[in-house]
Amino acid sequence: MDRIKLGMVGGGNDAFIGAVHRIASRLDDRYELVAGALSSTPEKSRESGEALGLARIYDDFKQMAIREARLKDGIEVVSIVTPNHMHYTTAREFLKRGIHVICDKPLTSTLADAKKLMKAAEGSDALFILTHNYTGYPMVRQAREMVAKGEIGKIRVVQVEYPQDWLTIHQDFKQAEWRTDPARSGAGGSTGDIGTHAHNLACFITGLEVEALAADLDAFVPGRQVDDNGHVLLRFKGGAKGMLWCSQVAPGNENALRIRIYGETGGLEWAQEDPNYLWHTPFGEPKRLITRNGAGAGEAAAQVSRVPPGHPEGYLEGFANIYSEAADMIKAHREGQEVKTLLPTVKDGLRGVQFVDACVRSSARNAAWVTIPN
Amino acid sequence: MDRIKLGMVGGGNDAFIGAVHRIASRLDDRYELVAGALSSTPEKSRESGEALGLARIYDDFKQMAIREARLKDGIEVVSIVTPNHMHYTTAREFLKRGIHVICDKPLTSTLADAKKLMKAAEGSDALFILTHNYTGYPMVRQAREMVAKGEIGKIRVVQVEYPQDWLTIHQDFKQAEWRTDPARSGAGGSTGDIGTHAHNLACFITGLEVEALAADLDAFVPGRQVDDNGHVLLRFKGGAKGMLWCSQVAPGNENALRIRIYGETGGLEWAQEDPNYLWHTPFGEPKRLITRNGAGAGEAAAQVSRVPPGHPEGYLEGFANIYSEAADMIKAHREGQEVKTLLPTVKDGLRGVQFVDACVRSSARNAAWVTIPN
Amino acid sequence: MDRIKLGMVGGGNDAFIGAVHRIASRLDDRYELVAGALSSTPEKSRESGEALGLARIYDDFKQMAIREARLKDGIEVVSIVTPNHMHYTTAREFLKRGIHVICDKPLTSTLADAKKLMKAAEGSDALFILTHNYTGYPMVRQAREMVAKGEIGKIRVVQVEYPQDWLTIHQDFKQAEWRTDPARSGAGGSTGDIGTHAHNLACFITGLEVEALAADLDAFVPGRQVDDNGHVLLRFKGGAKGMLWCSQVAPGNENALRIRIYGETGGLEWAQEDPNYLWHTPFGEPKRLITRNGAGAGEAAAQVSRVPPGHPEGYLEGFANIYSEAADMIKAHREGQEVKTLLPTVKDGLRGVQFVDACVRSSARNAAWVTIPN
Amino acid sequence: MDRIKLGMVGGGNDAFIGAVHRIASRLDDRYELVAGALSSTPEKSRESGEALGLARIYDDFKQMAIREARLKDGIEVVSIVTPNHMHYTTAREFLKRGIHVICDKPLTSTLADAKKLMKAAEGSDALFILTHNYTGYPMVRQAREMVAKGEIGKIRVVQVEYPQDWLTIHQDFKQAEWRTDPARSGAGGSTGDIGTHAHNLACFITGLEVEALAADLDAFVPGRQVDDNGHVLLRFKGGAKGMLWCSQVAPGNENALRIRIYGETGGLEWAQEDPNYLWHTPFGEPKRLITRNGAGAGEAAAQVSRVPPGHPEGYLEGFANIYSEAADMIKAHREGQEVKTLLPTVKDGLRGVQFVDACVRSSARNAAWVTIPN
Repeated sequence: MDRIKLGMVGGGNDAFIGAVHRIASRLDDRYELVAGALSSTPEKSRESGEALGLARIYDDFKQMAIREARLKDGIEVVSIVTPNHMHYTTAREFLKRGIHVICDKPLTSTLADAKKLMKAAEGSDALFILTHNYTGYPMVRQAREMVAKGEIGKIRVVQVEYPQDWLTIHQDFKQAEWRTDPARSGAGGSTGDIGTHAHNLACFITGLEVEALAADLDAFVPGRQVDDNGHVLLRFKGGAKGMLWCSQVAPGNENALRIRIYGETGGLEWAQEDPNYLWHTPFGEPKRLITRNGAGAGEAAAQVSRVPPGHPEGYLEGFANIYSEAADMIKAHREGQEVKTLLPTVKDGLRGVQFVDACVRSSARNAAWVTIPN
Repeated sequence: MDRIKLGMVGGGNDAFIGAVHRIASRLDDRYELVAGALSSTPEKSRESGEALGLARIYDDFKQMAIREARLKDGIEVVSIVTPNHMHYTTAREFLKRGIHVICDKPLTSTLADAKKLMKAAEGSDALFILTHNYTGYPMVRQAREMVAKGEIGKIRVVQVEYPQDWLTIHQDFKQAEWRTDPARSGAGGSTGDIGTHAHNLACFITGLEVEALAADLDAFVPGRQVDDNGHVLLRFKGGAKGMLWCSQVAPGNENALRIRIYGETGGLEWAQEDPNYLWHTPFGEPKRLITRNGAGAGEAAAQVSRVPPGHPEGYLEGFANIYSEAADMIKAHREGQEVKTLLPTVKDGLRGVQFVDACVRSSARNAAWVTIPN
Repeated sequence: MDRIKLGMVGGGNDAFIGAVHRIASRLDDRYELVAGALSSTPEKSRESGEALGLARIYDDFKQMAIREARLKDGIEVVSIVTPNHMHYTTAREFLKRGIHVICDKPLTSTLADAKKLMKAAEGSDALFILTHNYTGYPMVRQAREMVAKGEIGKIRVVQVEYPQDWLTIHQDFKQAEWRTDPARSGAGGSTGDIGTHAHNLACFITGLEVEALAADLDAFVPGRQVDDNGHVLLRFKGGAKGMLWCSQVAPGNENALRIRIYGETGGLEWAQEDPNYLWHTPFGEPKRLITRNGAGAGEAAAQVSRVPPGHPEGYLEGFANIYSEAADMIKAHREGQEVKTLLPTVKDGLRGVQFVDACVRSSARNAAWVTIPN
Repeated sequence: MDRIKLGMVGGGNDAFIGAVHRIASRLDDRYELVAGALSSTPEKSRESGEALGLARIYDDFKQMAIREARLKDGIEVVSIVTPNHMHYTTAREFLKRGIHVICDKPLTSTLADAKKLMKAAEGSDALFILTHNYTGYPMVRQAREMVAKGEIGKIRVVQVEYPQDWLTIHQDFKQAEWRTDPARSGAGGSTGDIGTHAHNLACFITGLEVEALAADLDAFVPGRQVDDNGHVLLRFKGGAKGMLWCSQVAPGNENALRIRIYGETGGLEWAQEDPNYLWHTPFGEPKRLITRNGAGAGEAAAQVSRVPPGHPEGYLEGFANIYSEAADMIKAHREGQEVKTLLPTVKDGLRGVQFVDACVRSSARNAAWVTIPN
């Protein structure tokens, strides 16, 4: 029952995702948050750190990495929840000192950074986990297991989408500001912020990789510097085809991530806003609604589910599954055991940034096909 | 109360769509079916015609056109419900003799035929109506009216799809056979059979026209000669963007035509399988579910609705609206009045065939953009 | 193809249900409406009859019964679509002259009339059919067939409800006026108008009969003379239990008739507003959504369905099934064949009126149990 | 940031609800679980306590109450998560020593115990909180706020139900065993275990109290000693009427708690399995779907919600709201401030047990009306 010592970079008072990471780390009681550099200025960092009762508060992440690495009971893992452009430089400092990293997505704001971060992670003994949190939902695991078992046959078509509506108009609060600033968010707007989730989810469930894509991106809101709507044709290795839609200007959609997968013998459908359900549609039979922990749900889902069927689990539970599996990995690593995991890796992160990069390049060339390197 | 004399070409015993047209013509008691050349052989025509109790049964459509045109109380309008490749030659014979035509979609199996049919229709005093029947649904009319009134603002994004699953495997019954035979169906498979419906619906509701498209078509089922799955990027005149998906290999989808439209101030969503509902999602307000004839539904929907809210209307009622509005047109034409209508015209039919043609050409060129002429 | 000659009593210009009966009779082309006494005054009758192009228009139903019975090609069947209090006297005149009767529900406005009408029907060679139209929906037939085949085991619990909202406030248009007037509607308000539908549906699908009930009825709207909300506990013969709720004051409910049936091994759920779906919930297995004409739907549903799965059928199609099966019965009767049917009979009508009577009596005695005689 | 010291009685290794309480207490980082008597035998208590890393493990709850009360930094609050029959004796020991109690529902297994526990709570300075956890859902709070603000007018009708299916057959695992044993569960089976939740929810949202009820209870599974299905008519003070259905034998229902409330000007509908949505149906306007933290959601919901709209919260978050508000109460109590709360009190608990008692007595008298004392 000794909890893993956790640090955090970013996630100060007015950040959304930092609080989510903290709850997620706490849900299964596997972590203790003890240190942080929570904001971009020392004052704000201190203020936020004190509000959380952190044992050790740092002015900046580099100082934090150096000192924690030297402490006898320093942090074993750090959560990086800054804006995207800070991921690489931050992660590097911890990785090179052997501190595991749990990093928010997308991996980085540029492809160059992503490649460097991949190199840094590969060159470190420390673990690197990317919080494509939707992979933590039980019914996403269920879908992945069913595909792997061949329950829908060879996959032909993937329809994935992640529409939102919060940027339908110009917004200038902090979240909106950095997420629409290419310097901090990266060249992709909706593609980077949510398109990467959709891309990752499609690959996670199907086990397929995108080979090439053609993207038609728009910035519909006047003055917006990054895309707020993206239409993407996908070609997967092995012949499956897909469509991906991401949007921040689709009124009535909150976080309507949704995926539909069709194989030679059946289909699957899952929606993030109603995550406890999975439709399975075997060809020639009635549609079946599989529920979390209910009849028809298998082992993969049960392992990441906490309460009985009919008692809904949500976003935080899915996010917490990432943290709890990361804890398993950290423990295995600590004990020199093989570290097996389904969690998104730095490689998945690189593929996400490649996806964004390919979307932006394709769109700049009138939606020409762009190949994604292996 | 004198009913309009109606004839039918095609729609013999084992056809699906002929029976639908007959019910649709009967629902509001505006037509009387009196003549027909219901099948491709005289024997079958006779057999089918007798089963329906037709007053005049013909061996073939040409004979029928000639004789009916001469009769004092011959048919005033003919329904053409043959396979696609017969539409042009059939329609031509009636149009040139001043007999109105109600023709099943798509307009023709080839672009060349479509242009000739357009010319034939324009050169005739007779009316030509294309049964893109989904435009007859009350809540489709409601959506169209709301867009026209600016209730969702200038349109940015259109997501439209028409997945089915009946051709997930090779099928060889009659319906499947001709619809997958390019000689009878046309070069487009799913694009022609259902993609045209999706295309038409998007244009009907939004009032926009597709300017260019990029299509990635597949024939997933081995041996299939026409596409059974199509992924299409759309660019509308005026700057709106769209995605169109049509598929006949998506298990769990029966006739899942669905459209979502997003404008600067709100969104609309409608699904053919649950046609009595229309979601309206004004930005910054709770989602609203408008029901057929219910609170919030307007004049356009009420005009084509027969029963109170909560008593569902379906496919046949929507189809019957096409026939009943065609009856209004025929009556207005007869009386020399101006013929106003929302019904799909030969021009809409041409645009549908252009859509299929563009899809096929784009896909052949690796999903390059293809412009659709005006 | 010779159509059955049909007459109509009631259903003049401003009536809702008369138009429904006419469309229903026409849908499958089995009837020809030739005669009518459509309104309570000769003037209105004439006006309405002419608008419909009736061959023979009568001043009143008695005159009509007498004359039609004498005509060589007089009507073979009459539809009675008057307010409830007129059903008995009207039906009697036709039954005693051997003219079949298709009568709107509830059977009568009083129990005394119901018994007399039952006697009249039993004493006549003519057929009597009651339009509990919801029994005509394909998925209701599907549910009935599944119960009969034991697919959910012995039934334990039935939850049935029919909420509406149109009488949430005082309304004084014609439909509201007579339906809230005990002299015309009967002692039951919501219980008579829609509770009888719920009661009938429960019995139709389960094959069970209500043995006793306890009812708590209210007239919530000030000045209303009949119940507008009813809460009813049901005990079925054989031990199943049920709850029935009918309401006309439940905002947001249009015609939300819905039934859920639970047996020892599974459940079924159907909702009138989405009638093309039937949930089947076998215990210990994922829920299954059976669709009209789709995979998993059986023979009973297919026989009363006209279009492929995914093309919704609605209220009028269900209603038309009553008429078309009545046509089968009339033809069989004409030819001296055995008349087999699932259609609601005069006995079912009597049981409906007994249900209303029992509700009213129970409620008057503080929701004491009232036994329903066999 | 000093966390409240928490103890737990019950909730050993194989219990479901204990783990839920622990997660709920942890989610917002307001508690530290330090002591426990987690099982009915000292050995199991020790084993479970060690697995959780508890600082102080006790053989039994009495010993725990005595010692913790004497410790300088002993627990400030205890969670009681034993079977129902142990609630009273356990709570008493802590209450009389000034230790706050968070107690699972129903309050007790007998009415006599409930009254004694109420007296004990009233006689203590310590706080008593009952975990009718569904009151913690944001959209339940939203509904309550809307009713209080008069947004649906004076309430007329309440439909509430809580069907499950897990006891459709005889089950003999531990959870099933004690919950169907009247000695441990109380005289009510489904009425006590889930009917109380439904009853509480109805009262919580509407602000109304049940004045009288008539119940028809059944034990459908052979050999079952307590009801597994209950049909209850409700009369609320002030004239509203209701129906309550609870069942553990309704295949296809997991935890399908659902409430519908109709007032003079509108309705509300909420379902526990999809808790992030609330339907609002103002009479004469389109239905509105209010989402958690979305447009149209108010202050009451926002206060108990953690993540943005479209990211679902579930059962654990709702449960955690109970704990976090209890923490607020404890803190206010500690500082001598007024303790304001919406949380279920011992009085609510008593009313719940009165509800069960009334159901059982009513059913024994053939569903006669039983008045619930104030």
